[in-house]
Amino acid sequence: MRIFLQDRPVSGVVKIYGDDYIHLTRSLRVGCGEEITFVHGGTDFFGVVTAITKDCLEAKITAEKLAESEPNLKITLFQAMPKFDKFEQIIEKSVELGVTQIVPFLSERCVSRPKNDKSQRWQKISESAAKQSGRGIIPEVGRIISFKEAVEQMKTFDLPMFFYETGGERMTAEMVENKKTAAVMIGAEGGFSLDESRRAEAAGMKILTLGKRILRCETAPVAAVSILMYLTGEG
Amino acid sequence: MRIFLQDRPVSGVVKIYGDDYIHLTRSLRVGCGEEITFVHGGTDFFGVVTAITKDCLEAKITAEKLAESEPNLKITLFQAMPKFDKFEQIIEKSVELGVTQIVPFLSERCVSRPKNDKSQRWQKISESAAKQSGRGIIPEVGRIISFKEAVEQMKTFDLPMFFYETGGERMTAEMVENKKTAAVMIGAEGGFSLDESRRAEAAGMKILTLGKRILRCETAPVAAVSILMYLTGEG
Repeated sequence: MRIFLQDRPVSGVVKIYGDDYIHLTRSLRVGCGEEITFVHGGTDFFGVVTAITKDCLEAKITAEKLAESEPNLKITLFQAMPKFDKFEQIIEKSVELGVTQIVPFLSERCVSRPKNDKSQRWQKISESAAKQSGRGIIPEVGRIISFKEAVEQMKTFDLPMFFYETGGERMTAEMVENKKTAAVMIGAEGGFSLDESRRAEAAGMKILTLGKRILRCETAPVAAVSILMYLTGEG
Repeated sequence: MRIFLQDRPVSGVVKIYGDDYIHLTRSLRVGCGEEITFVHGGTDFFGVVTAITKDCLEAKITAEKLAESEPNLKITLFQAMPKFDKFEQIIEKSVELGVTQIVPFLSERCVSRPKNDKSQRWQKISESAAKQSGRGIIPEVGRIISFKEAVEQMKTFDLPMFFYETGGERMTAEMVENKKTAAVMIGAEGGFSLDESRRAEAAGMKILTLGKRILRCETAPVAAVSILMYLTGEG
């Protein structure tokens, strides 16, 4: 099992309290001498349980190495806000597939315009998917921003990609070569307006297609990230 | 909108009754002179509504052409039976992405072993996804077969692919070159046993990987089909 740590282990000892403590000792019935992988900032720390008290599990770190599951290309998904259950599916699946960060934004055709702050819930979904898929980080789900802000932020990426349902170029291996950061922009249920696609193009984004079939807004990011990871040689 | 026909239109006229009639006339309020695309067996038939009576909509076919959205590579997904809600997600998304057929089967680690026949419900999900994504056919969801039967069936495909969570080769563009039919085999929640992977290999399947991260059983087929379609030049 993998336990994500808030802080880097100091002097080779890890102490676990709270929810993770309860999960490890009660659900998984971990005992002294057993091995646990702790994860912090893309590094795996291999630990052996040395003591269990009534509110704390203590482990000694025996080795550490960079988490193999972390891709070299850091992908941020800019996702126009769909209905909530779809957004939760998108978080789960894109974290499994290896995105580094998810940024929800509002586009012209967004029907879902949330009033309540759901960021804690979304972060939990990301954490749970990161654990399940063996990630070395917990991808951050950002706050909801505007289309304009999203376009501004995307300018800072090596490879800003705009997926347009009416067509565009195909992704290629050459596009991703030597790139460190990629940003993938995907529309909500109704896709993007022509005006939005023009603004994306004017901002220097590549206008791309995912093929001839029309994908639902929760399928498109999964397809895009799968292909992108494949093209980096990691998918 | 796209309406799937049971039979090929005869002498240039289409008559629509029942659910499709109600959907067209009541929900979509289609009137005389409006255009509708009818679909049968991978061909799109363009029609103009000529008459609407109290139980029938009649249209004249003005043109027909092969549905552009149909991929040249026919992909059959052999999916080990996961929990029902996951299987329904898999049907929906793989139909959107372009599979031709879905065959559920039982593997060693399948937890879900359905007693009731759900095939009608599954076929409906396929139909609805086919309409939504602009497909030229409604992919068939087969009956549940055994692992052994699935392996036998897969031998008849040009490219039988076994996706193994413990690792394998990467898919390549060369693999799919000049292939007409591909079969994608994906495990259920617990993946495949070593014995199953050996039997797959012995049957001539390629043992393949989807990368370093562990994908949920409902994410793996979406990733595999996305990449496969991409490699054919159609994704």
